[in-house]
Amino acid sequence: MENMDVIFGKNSITEALIAGNREINKILISKNIHNDAKINKIKELAQEKGIVFQFVAKEKFQPYAEFNHQGVIALISPITYTDLDEFLESREHTNSSLVILDGIEDSHNLGAIIRTCVCAGVDGIIIPSRRNVQINSTVEKVSAGAINHIPIIKVNSPVNAVQKLKDNNWWIIATDASAKDNYYDVKYDDMNFAIIMGAEHAGVSKSLLKASDFIVKIPMQNSFNSLNVSNALSAIIFETLRQKLKKNK
Amino acid sequence: MENMDVIFGKNSITEALIAGNREINKILISKNIHNDAKINKIKELAQEKGIVFQFVAKEKFQPYAEFNHQGVIALISPITYTDLDEFLESREHTNSSLVILDGIEDSHNLGAIIRTCVCAGVDGIIIPSRRNVQINSTVEKVSAGAINHIPIIKVNSPVNAVQKLKDNNWWIIATDASAKDNYYDVKYDDMNFAIIMGAEHAGVSKSLLKASDFIVKIPMQNSFNSLNVSNALSAIIFETLRQKLKKNK
Repeated sequence: MENMDVIFGKNSITEALIAGNREINKILISKNIHNDAKINKIKELAQEKGIVFQFVAKEKFQPYAEFNHQGVIALISPITYTDLDEFLESREHTNSSLVILDGIEDSHNLGAIIRTCVCAGVDGIIIPSRRNVQINSTVEKVSAGAINHIPIIKVNSPVNAVQKLKDNNWWIIATDASAKDNYYDVKYDDMNFAIIMGAEHAGVSKSLLKASDFIVKIPMQNSFNSLNVSNALSAIIFETLRQKLKKNK
Repeated sequence: MENMDVIFGKNSITEALIAGNREINKILISKNIHNDAKINKIKELAQEKGIVFQFVAKEKFQPYAEFNHQGVIALISPITYTDLDEFLESREHTNSSLVILDGIEDSHNLGAIIRTCVCAGVDGIIIPSRRNVQINSTVEKVSAGAINHIPIIKVNSPVNAVQKLKDNNWWIIATDASAKDNYYDVKYDDMNFAIIMGAEHAGVSKSLLKASDFIVKIPMQNSFNSLNVSNALSAIIFETLRQKLKKNK
């Protein structure tokens, strides 16, 4: 393993073991922690898969003090990004969904977004290779391991990615506070669609707004109208799911 | 001011100044920070309201190093909790909404929930006085000041609070992963209702589930099904809002 990531915490490591799509080099468990059901599950899964786990002095965790590691870390191969072409050609897409992130800065937000997307059955997440937080240990931790259950598609140019999606008959929906239409006015149950969520402060960039087929807002009920980006996405993405499930009933 | 809270960060302090419902004793600004538009706004609002602000050496912020204070803190009177009777009698409630939190442990989750509730126009939040995280500096910071825009109703017994709501013709909806009905199957646009969200791991307690009129779930699309509680609430609460706005159109 030439390159290696460190992941932290019981849930992240359990999920990585279950998903099994990344090579785990070693799991380190602090000698000082209580052997609870989750730790036993990690040991059991590691044994099953022939992955080394070691009990080490808590001092070994010193370099990771800033992370909420719960006394367990794993050395793991970095996540494998999916190519957009590869994603599009992997199968026939019918009423599939993507989330495109345009300049998300906060690791906690990215982790929460990944988690929500997996729960709601989103088919992939597109992140730009620049001007967007990348997948790091905090993102993994906050995603509670969800990162292993969804393709992460890294692109150099979100504008080019949107164009490619449109060429492949996908519909693009951007979110913007000044939009006229509400997010629930769009009919999501008969098309492949990608939802663009903008940066925490700047919102979706002009070039992406211009390239979008729909621009929608979440109707705010208060002069205080700063909704967190992961909570905004949750409202929208579960509305798309509501429509899909209602139709297929 | 006998009791005092410390709040951190530009947005929290700006929102507290605008809301004006709590006595601000003093604002401390680090001499080392860049004087941006947000800091200027804070100074302007403070001057307008006759509130003292001081420029201090960055060492003064040492005790608050663990918080993301952005070089500005304020000493402020604690938030005033609302009594449930007071809330119920304050006006005639028609299609009003409450969120009841049952054992939320994480300050970030509580802050995010408050923020989402304010954006979605929820009328109040009920938190138990025990076995639930209380309003602290982190909650204030994560709520981005939303805490000043919604009544927080503290109750000793959530079960008694639910009974009182039912006696006043409110409907109670609890969330539970094993529910049969989906959250969008309930009709929210013609009743006063309270949504109960459970603890991150344990969920809604049995006694509250028993006291509820409806038990609903969010349909999960993956074997990975651990949705963050603030994102779960966001999906549900914006569905209630969608129904209300559709009706009033």
